[in-house]
Amino acid sequence: MTRDTLTPAQDAGTRAGLAAALDAGAALLEAGGAALDAVAAALRVLEDDPHFNAGRGAALTWDGRAELDAAIMDGRDRRAGAVAGVTATRHPVDLARAVMEQRAHVLLSGPGADAFSRDHGLEQAAPGWFALPEREAQLAEMKAGGGTFDVDMKYGTVGAVACDAHGHVAAATSTGGVTGKRWGRIGDSPLIGAGTYADDRAAAVSATGAGEFFIRASVAHEICARVRLAGEGLQAAAEGVIAEVAALGGTGGVIVAGPSGELACSFATPGMNRGQATSDGTRMVAIYRDE
Amino acid sequence: MTRDTLTPAQDAGTRAGLAAALDAGAALLEAGGAALDAVAAALRVLEDDPHFNAGRGAALTWDGRAELDAAIMDGRDRRAGAVAGVTATRHPVDLARAVMEQRAHVLLSGPGADAFSRDHGLEQAAPGWFALPEREAQLAEMKAGGGTFDVDMKYGTVGAVACDAHGHVAAATSTGGVTGKRWGRIGDSPLIGAGTYADDRAAAVSATGAGEFFIRASVAHEICARVRLAGEGLQAAAEGVIAEVAALGGTGGVIVAGPSGELACSFATPGMNRGQATSDGTRMVAIYRDE
Repeated sequence: MTRDTLTPAQDAGTRAGLAAALDAGAALLEAGGAALDAVAAALRVLEDDPHFNAGRGAALTWDGRAELDAAIMDGRDRRAGAVAGVTATRHPVDLARAVMEQRAHVLLSGPGADAFSRDHGLEQAAPGWFALPEREAQLAEMKAGGGTFDVDMKYGTVGAVACDAHGHVAAATSTGGVTGKRWGRIGDSPLIGAGTYADDRAAAVSATGAGEFFIRASVAHEICARVRLAGEGLQAAAEGVIAEVAALGGTGGVIVAGPSGELACSFATPGMNRGQATSDGTRMVAIYRDE
Repeated sequence: MTRDTLTPAQDAGTRAGLAAALDAGAALLEAGGAALDAVAAALRVLEDDPHFNAGRGAALTWDGRAELDAAIMDGRDRRAGAVAGVTATRHPVDLARAVMEQRAHVLLSGPGADAFSRDHGLEQAAPGWFALPEREAQLAEMKAGGGTFDVDMKYGTVGAVACDAHGHVAAATSTGGVTGKRWGRIGDSPLIGAGTYADDRAAAVSATGAGEFFIRASVAHEICARVRLAGEGLQAAAEGVIAEVAALGGTGGVIVAGPSGELACSFATPGMNRGQATSDGTRMVAIYRDE
């Protein structure tokens, strides 16, 4: 993700999508709403936006389908919900939240999670809503290149973290995973502790990158553990864990929000789509490292 | 799990199974083998033994099927493999290891994971191998009781942790999950960081219990984080995290092995099937808390 690889239209579309997601989340927070609602609202915008690898415009599996993963977690009580490999829910983040609110389970998967979605009245969408020509071309290119899984291919997973006026944090993550994934592969995004975690005692974290390395390092929980057990600051914890992922051979990034409203971000890539909005009116949207 | 609820035959069968699993793992370790091989060998024994909720004799889903979860992790390099919702592999722990060795992915699920199993030559078994009359009766009883998920129902998940002569640790976990599970529910067992984790810098951990609470607390990784970041001993870390699970409303237990050969165990239930073997010849098998 460099200035060479994004067209001006992609650059502008990505920034507009990030700004719209920030608007959606910030409006709720400004009205005194909960961090949990804000992260869900931001992700719904990004899931509908084909510039990102989640919901509409998700990366496609080896079979050319969208298999979507999402998670949400509330730092107040560490309640969490997640889904993996769902194929027909317009907003996987809402489905993850429905799982959380159903209370019995945390993670549902595959056809069973699709059935849960229908049973609970989530908005359904046809395969053509998710699978766009650009993603089909990327899949064809991946297959032509030998069909190996490129750990650097997966960028565009969407995530949001927030701290509300009451000092509660929340995190949510949504993705189509890696292009050409097979065998019901589940990445880090829907795994509580790996790609998503929130704990009012520490922070809320959402990750993007080469998911398998993020699972092995328990990235999201490790950041919270460093803050809570080792007294590290959010930025130091984020950078330390991204360095640990790099030592394992992986790359990617994280966004972090703490219960005092502090924000952090770390990535070991040339760029990462990101933005932030704070109660003092600061707004930032960026793609490349040097921004 | 008390003396009132186990018949003498169940008690004796459970102890025999634990002893056989210890024999299988200890024989490898005594011959200088790797912790990773030892935990897999122990779990293969337990997966074949109908006294435990894994492989043959697994708890059944709402639809009366076995949907098996397993994970394995190597503390040397934190490589890991896991499967969720597989239905036809005799030894899910071996399938988890095959995923680990295939290197591209960490977690495979559902029909895709079944296909991976066939493609990679894992031993297949028919549904009748897994689903036993006793488990069918438990499912009928659960449905007759209103069909709610009882967080206390799931005991019998099998796990193993080991430290080998080289100071490397490994962990593995295998389960059928909770009786009557639906919607492709995935518990903590196959989730790296939740039910299973291994890191030579800290410990190897395998968990059993009310999986959803173990996911929310990132139990296995949290124990390792307490050891590595807060300097806690294995037993203190295990007890602290089980107390945290209890504070969230859940119950269960963990087994832990450290890279110096130290062992720990903590559970918040009347009993937990467990055993240990050490290089000085100590052998222990137990079920109830007061043993």
